[in-house]
Amino acid sequence: MVNPLQEEKVFKDPVHKYIYVQDQTIWDLINTREFQRLRRVRQLGTCFLTFHGAEHSRFSHSLGVYEVTRKIISQFERNQYEDWPRHERLLCLCAALLHDVGHGPFSHSIEKTFGTHHEAWSCRIVLGETEVNQVLRQVAPDFPQKVADVIAKTYNKEIVVSLVSSQLDADRMDYLLRDAYYTGVNYGTFDLERILRVMRPYQGHIVVKESGMHAVEDYLMSRYQMYWQVYFHPVTRSAEIVLHKIFQRAKQLYEEKYRFRFLLPPLLGLFEQKLTVQDYHLLDEAFMQTVFMQWTYEEDEVLSDLCSRFLERRLFKYVTLDRIDTGLLDKLRGEMKRIGIDPAYYVEIDFPSDLSYDIYRPGEEDEKLPILLLDSKDSLTEISRKSEIVRSISGIHMGKYHLYYPGEFVLNHGAELGPDLRRLLQL
Amino acid sequence: MVNPLQEEKVFKDPVHKYIYVQDQTIWDLINTREFQRLRRVRQLGTCFLTFHGAEHSRFSHSLGVYEVTRKIISQFERNQYEDWPRHERLLCLCAALLHDVGHGPFSHSIEKTFGTHHEAWSCRIVLGETEVNQVLRQVAPDFPQKVADVIAKTYNKEIVVSLVSSQLDADRMDYLLRDAYYTGVNYGTFDLERILRVMRPYQGHIVVKESGMHAVEDYLMSRYQMYWQVYFHPVTRSAEIVLHKIFQRAKQLYEEKYRFRFLLPPLLGLFEQKLTVQDYHLLDEAFMQTVFMQWTYEEDEVLSDLCSRFLERRLFKYVTLDRIDTGLLDKLRGEMKRIGIDPAYYVEIDFPSDLSYDIYRPGEEDEKLPILLLDSKDSLTEISRKSEIVRSISGIHMGKYHLYYPGEFVLNHGAELGPDLRRLLQL
Amino acid sequence: MVNPLQEEKVFKDPVHKYIYVQDQTIWDLINTREFQRLRRVRQLGTCFLTFHGAEHSRFSHSLGVYEVTRKIISQFERNQYEDWPRHERLLCLCAALLHDVGHGPFSHSIEKTFGTHHEAWSCRIVLGETEVNQVLRQVAPDFPQKVADVIAKTYNKEIVVSLVSSQLDADRMDYLLRDAYYTGVNYGTFDLERILRVMRPYQGHIVVKESGMHAVEDYLMSRYQMYWQVYFHPVTRSAEIVLHKIFQRAKQLYEEKYRFRFLLPPLLGLFEQKLTVQDYHLLDEAFMQTVFMQWTYEEDEVLSDLCSRFLERRLFKYVTLDRIDTGLLDKLRGEMKRIGIDPAYYVEIDFPSDLSYDIYRPGEEDEKLPILLLDSKDSLTEISRKSEIVRSISGIHMGKYHLYYPGEFVLNHGAELGPDLRRLLQL
Amino acid sequence: MVNPLQEEKVFKDPVHKYIYVQDQTIWDLINTREFQRLRRVRQLGTCFLTFHGAEHSRFSHSLGVYEVTRKIISQFERNQYEDWPRHERLLCLCAALLHDVGHGPFSHSIEKTFGTHHEAWSCRIVLGETEVNQVLRQVAPDFPQKVADVIAKTYNKEIVVSLVSSQLDADRMDYLLRDAYYTGVNYGTFDLERILRVMRPYQGHIVVKESGMHAVEDYLMSRYQMYWQVYFHPVTRSAEIVLHKIFQRAKQLYEEKYRFRFLLPPLLGLFEQKLTVQDYHLLDEAFMQTVFMQWTYEEDEVLSDLCSRFLERRLFKYVTLDRIDTGLLDKLRGEMKRIGIDPAYYVEIDFPSDLSYDIYRPGEEDEKLPILLLDSKDSLTEISRKSEIVRSISGIHMGKYHLYYPGEFVLNHGAELGPDLRRLLQL
Repeated sequence: MVNPLQEEKVFKDPVHKYIYVQDQTIWDLINTREFQRLRRVRQLGTCFLTFHGAEHSRFSHSLGVYEVTRKIISQFERNQYEDWPRHERLLCLCAALLHDVGHGPFSHSIEKTFGTHHEAWSCRIVLGETEVNQVLRQVAPDFPQKVADVIAKTYNKEIVVSLVSSQLDADRMDYLLRDAYYTGVNYGTFDLERILRVMRPYQGHIVVKESGMHAVEDYLMSRYQMYWQVYFHPVTRSAEIVLHKIFQRAKQLYEEKYRFRFLLPPLLGLFEQKLTVQDYHLLDEAFMQTVFMQWTYEEDEVLSDLCSRFLERRLFKYVTLDRIDTGLLDKLRGEMKRIGIDPAYYVEIDFPSDLSYDIYRPGEEDEKLPILLLDSKDSLTEISRKSEIVRSISGIHMGKYHLYYPGEFVLNHGAELGPDLRRLLQL
Repeated sequence: MVNPLQEEKVFKDPVHKYIYVQDQTIWDLINTREFQRLRRVRQLGTCFLTFHGAEHSRFSHSLGVYEVTRKIISQFERNQYEDWPRHERLLCLCAALLHDVGHGPFSHSIEKTFGTHHEAWSCRIVLGETEVNQVLRQVAPDFPQKVADVIAKTYNKEIVVSLVSSQLDADRMDYLLRDAYYTGVNYGTFDLERILRVMRPYQGHIVVKESGMHAVEDYLMSRYQMYWQVYFHPVTRSAEIVLHKIFQRAKQLYEEKYRFRFLLPPLLGLFEQKLTVQDYHLLDEAFMQTVFMQWTYEEDEVLSDLCSRFLERRLFKYVTLDRIDTGLLDKLRGEMKRIGIDPAYYVEIDFPSDLSYDIYRPGEEDEKLPILLLDSKDSLTEISRKSEIVRSISGIHMGKYHLYYPGEFVLNHGAELGPDLRRLLQL
Repeated sequence: MVNPLQEEKVFKDPVHKYIYVQDQTIWDLINTREFQRLRRVRQLGTCFLTFHGAEHSRFSHSLGVYEVTRKIISQFERNQYEDWPRHERLLCLCAALLHDVGHGPFSHSIEKTFGTHHEAWSCRIVLGETEVNQVLRQVAPDFPQKVADVIAKTYNKEIVVSLVSSQLDADRMDYLLRDAYYTGVNYGTFDLERILRVMRPYQGHIVVKESGMHAVEDYLMSRYQMYWQVYFHPVTRSAEIVLHKIFQRAKQLYEEKYRFRFLLPPLLGLFEQKLTVQDYHLLDEAFMQTVFMQWTYEEDEVLSDLCSRFLERRLFKYVTLDRIDTGLLDKLRGEMKRIGIDPAYYVEIDFPSDLSYDIYRPGEEDEKLPILLLDSKDSLTEISRKSEIVRSISGIHMGKYHLYYPGEFVLNHGAELGPDLRRLLQL
Repeated sequence: MVNPLQEEKVFKDPVHKYIYVQDQTIWDLINTREFQRLRRVRQLGTCFLTFHGAEHSRFSHSLGVYEVTRKIISQFERNQYEDWPRHERLLCLCAALLHDVGHGPFSHSIEKTFGTHHEAWSCRIVLGETEVNQVLRQVAPDFPQKVADVIAKTYNKEIVVSLVSSQLDADRMDYLLRDAYYTGVNYGTFDLERILRVMRPYQGHIVVKESGMHAVEDYLMSRYQMYWQVYFHPVTRSAEIVLHKIFQRAKQLYEEKYRFRFLLPPLLGLFEQKLTVQDYHLLDEAFMQTVFMQWTYEEDEVLSDLCSRFLERRLFKYVTLDRIDTGLLDKLRGEMKRIGIDPAYYVEIDFPSDLSYDIYRPGEEDEKLPILLLDSKDSLTEISRKSEIVRSISGIHMGKYHLYYPGEFVLNHGAELGPDLRRLLQL
């Protein structure tokens, strides 16, 4: 049951100026405890350690994704496009708002170590015994399932899924603008209003009028720049690595029956991979930071040291490598071990494009729907076939290897190292 | 010992574009654990519950205050003003950077309940056994004391103190711009570059060329608007009140020997007003939010309810009152008590101008140094004597009373209330 | 006959991002030669000689006024306010677009000298044999008259008039934002979107919800600052004075039957105050600047000198005076005459508030409709009765006298002057 | 003789916030009549007919180029780079300020028709009997020649020339930002401050630190987008074509001894290609627009029609063609002639990349100095060898043919055309 608010409500938002809420369901969802929890999870994880302004939460971003979706749909409705399925409006808005509701603190590192998956958690929250589920059920008994299907990209209408999740979706459009705003870089800016004006529902797809190709190029270029300037910044990667090492160490200790000085219930669920929805609710960034702070007092020196490093931002140093010499790296690890530093926690090779890096790559095994241009003769073409710029961005694999290690190691032991290792570490 | 960095370092900052670090001392201070802790304390406390974008930390603001101070001094040096004591440069920069280092989580509420004071804590951190102190001592043995004196406003040169703390100081100039940026309102914007250009060191004061009067009016008007639109926003006040009630309740329970399910060391220090510098370090917003989250499971229903309210943003509702009818309020409290709601924790009268509200009020018992205009004949006049705008802002006491109470009370019991109480609550 | 465009057309606009045209009538009006002529008339007259960025035309501004009006009306329609007369939409939009169509080049000076009046000319263009008139007649035979009535503020529905012309009208909202944007000052910025959201049609008036009072204060404060920082800037005033002197001199010469080397027809119409609509069309800023350029070759030295001054920006210098000593001024004029400088063209006293200066002054003989606040009990109050800020701005008459004169006079003859004149000129 | 101003002067500028003048020479140059003339020449020629905000002048841009140059040099001086020839500072600043002083009205079209060249004119103004020359000679007798050499790119130090004229010069950096600002598009924005920070004087070149590669990519991408979105916009091209036809027609008529109703001296100089510096001064955009306006009354119908079209913005329509069928075009011309329309003035094929289009093309016969990256081992590499993005932009020739013609031709005669011409015109 669609239930419009008597009076539109607004949130002041730095990126979209205002966010407009017109439905009781949306209003109620925002006020659930599960959605409010997103205020305690940063949108960009560890990135604030590189760009201090990037302290914004997934709460802000989720409102933004909702607002971009609302704007797109409102444009579709105003222009009365026939190919737009009007009755799916509320479903799209709810899915847009909730698609990140399952994000935990520092998701990437936690997911990597403990096998959780934020999308799966979003669905569990939508379908489980939660306030979110209660609100959704008031629309219709099968409404929560529909929302979960859209989030899981299994909903049977591409057009609905693609608003929230495709190469040109509300999610990305908000986060590029928002992350650019909060970090202060101007790589992420593009003309949102223009892109919205050239989007069309067409034969079950969301497509873009060909005349808008340059605007889309600009958006893809923003994405490209944001990845290399912000998301893959080596300092941010260094923080991710320290974080990942903390989780690895803690997991290892737990498996070895180490007695933690500080261990609250949701951690147990995490370690044993038996998290309940209730546990998950407790697991926000405030909690994790408190855990790290308490763990600086742990007896295990590796855990305590890594936690201090993270909190006090004494991250790993790095050198950039064109290629990997496995023998040399083994030698480095051996040298560390000799000195008493455990290389399992204090050396790491990182290669950005190992990540699911999300640069536009049409035709690859990427699950994201591609961007289609609609020309004046009503035929559709995938954008990289028309745009050399897009082609050039799509094919790029410019990542380099970075070798991360504690700066103190070099400071204290650099002089003892042989010439090959000194060369490796660029001393 | 002043020790310039071999190569200038920069931070990307959304407000000032870049923040430039040119001294080893500043760089080292930023990297201390005490300064890094400011990343875990929000600049605007509970304001993010009204303006979701306002999630920025005191870390960002402190860098900003440093940068504004650096810009002012660099302008003074470039113009070779004789009245500027050049050798105080590093002292000013350090005091600017560190003036907020003693801020705890949700300072206002905690200070009100437990009698801590952030300025005193800044001095304790500067003078105590801390990394900050170590870095400062490398400049000169008496340097930490000087920095503490500037922060405490007891340093014997007004011109140094006034850069960091006066009616037109680097602190306010940064926070108005920054809070406006992050909340997304445009009330706080003024022409920083122009104001910096009209500031002059003059006979031991920082003064403003008369030709810059309108720019200063604009700045004061921004301040006025930010206070009434953002800082005193009734929803932010509501969150402050819930927070304050949490602390009050916890203190009360502790005094009554209640057995907390969850109680970590720094809380003991707080309750017993015996916090060490080490305790204080643990006491950040991540910690406090974790405590609130754990306290939602406490047996004490008042404490548990208030904590849930705060975390899930179920704040108190309010009505605006022109004046206070004590009898009627007592009646309301009685009615609540009858129903089983403790009015000590569930009703509150708030009057914004009760706060130290910081609107420009020359001549009052305000400790802040006033703004002096320097005219073409080299005479000084306090700005409100020349500007009617400033006069009009200065004299204003437009606050109204707000009565805060839980929305559920009215929902469940509103119908049972007498006509006078119904009128009071505007039902 | 209302005739929507098949496809919305847009103009890229720096202030409003996009300007949306939805009606054939509006589109056709924009394409008339009379409206295109506004591209050749600067919005801020001589202000570009002070703020070099202020080179924008009345064409841009007129589109902006149209767009603000369109936004207001669209908000009224979306919210389905009963007090809004829906059928007046196109009339409002046309009047908004055309209200300045009668502006000539450097209007203020020309109007002052030759008694033309831009509002009257707007009506003549709307009603005369013009392309504009043709387009309007296609809506209905009496439509041009209606548009003229709204522009002349004699239309019988206040609500229609007040959108285009009141203390809070689309005209001012656009020009404050636009002039701030192009000059680069940030005094003129206010939250347009918020103001639009608190405007309401109510019992034949446009009113503002009381909760929006601070936003309106901010808007009025912008106006106040723009007047004193930009519009009344003494250098801009100096250019206005030189311009006025040019027109005065030319008129005088014409009356004295002086034989101009260069004299094109529309000038004759102007001199004889018999301009036809056709003449008027030729009279744009390009034309006037060409005339000035040609007149630098006139034999009359006063005219030729004044024209050079204007084109080469050798404006008059000024001193600020608290009060006027008529005797002393006469002495100065005498001194000039003695040297051979005609004081009628080379000295001027200017007092900004002599102008119709447009600061908000409720209750004065100002023809502009005041700003009314609508409170929660549906009663209306004029804003200055509730806002001290507005009161303080409204009552201010802070203008000072400025005495303008050629810098060369002082350079060449300053030393010969007596002590009283030297004091007057602050030598 | 370098002569610093006693007090720095500033201009408010929307793009750079403030423009700082620190030398008497610069101040005096700005106040010459030749430089003030630039206020009467639009920076973007006919582009304001597409983007109405683009009404800014070459005066504004020239100040901007000066300011960017000043910032670069000031950074070089602050960092005390040895490879920077400090004594060339004033020369660079003067050349930056004056490089466009020879621009006439609607330069491209006039240059194409009458063979003038703005760079040559800049040198004539610098070297001729002008106020500019007088000011420059006060620095040193050979200073005007040096300035002319830098403008003509024949000065013997590449590093000086490249600041004002290279692939990454102050000229382009200002115009991209400025044109983006005034048109309102956001394609032209890039991080100027960051680019300035990574520029270095190095062995006689201006180079860029490799770590700044992405920032330069972003700048080149802006350039690419600005060309295709703004400078080559088909409507702007249409206006250029109409303009060019006006000049062609006038020249033709003059050669045929046609008696113009309106013909002022500088036009004669232009027609006979014997312009004096004095003539040139009169030849601004105000003049040309006045000429066009007067010519709307000429007896020659082609001239009069083309002038009306330009002033009233009744430009040519266009269709986009993948390739050119010469036979078909001849047929179209024949058809026009038959109807009485002269195809020499009413049909045109345009191919954007025919223009000197200024996309970054390393290694081509382009006279502009390429962008060199400086890596950590102090070796230099041309940027397109490291950046795939730059490579992809450089190689692109995506221009299409556009066929321009009067819309009325199709409206009135479209139905009479054969199927092949109808297909050509996409009817």
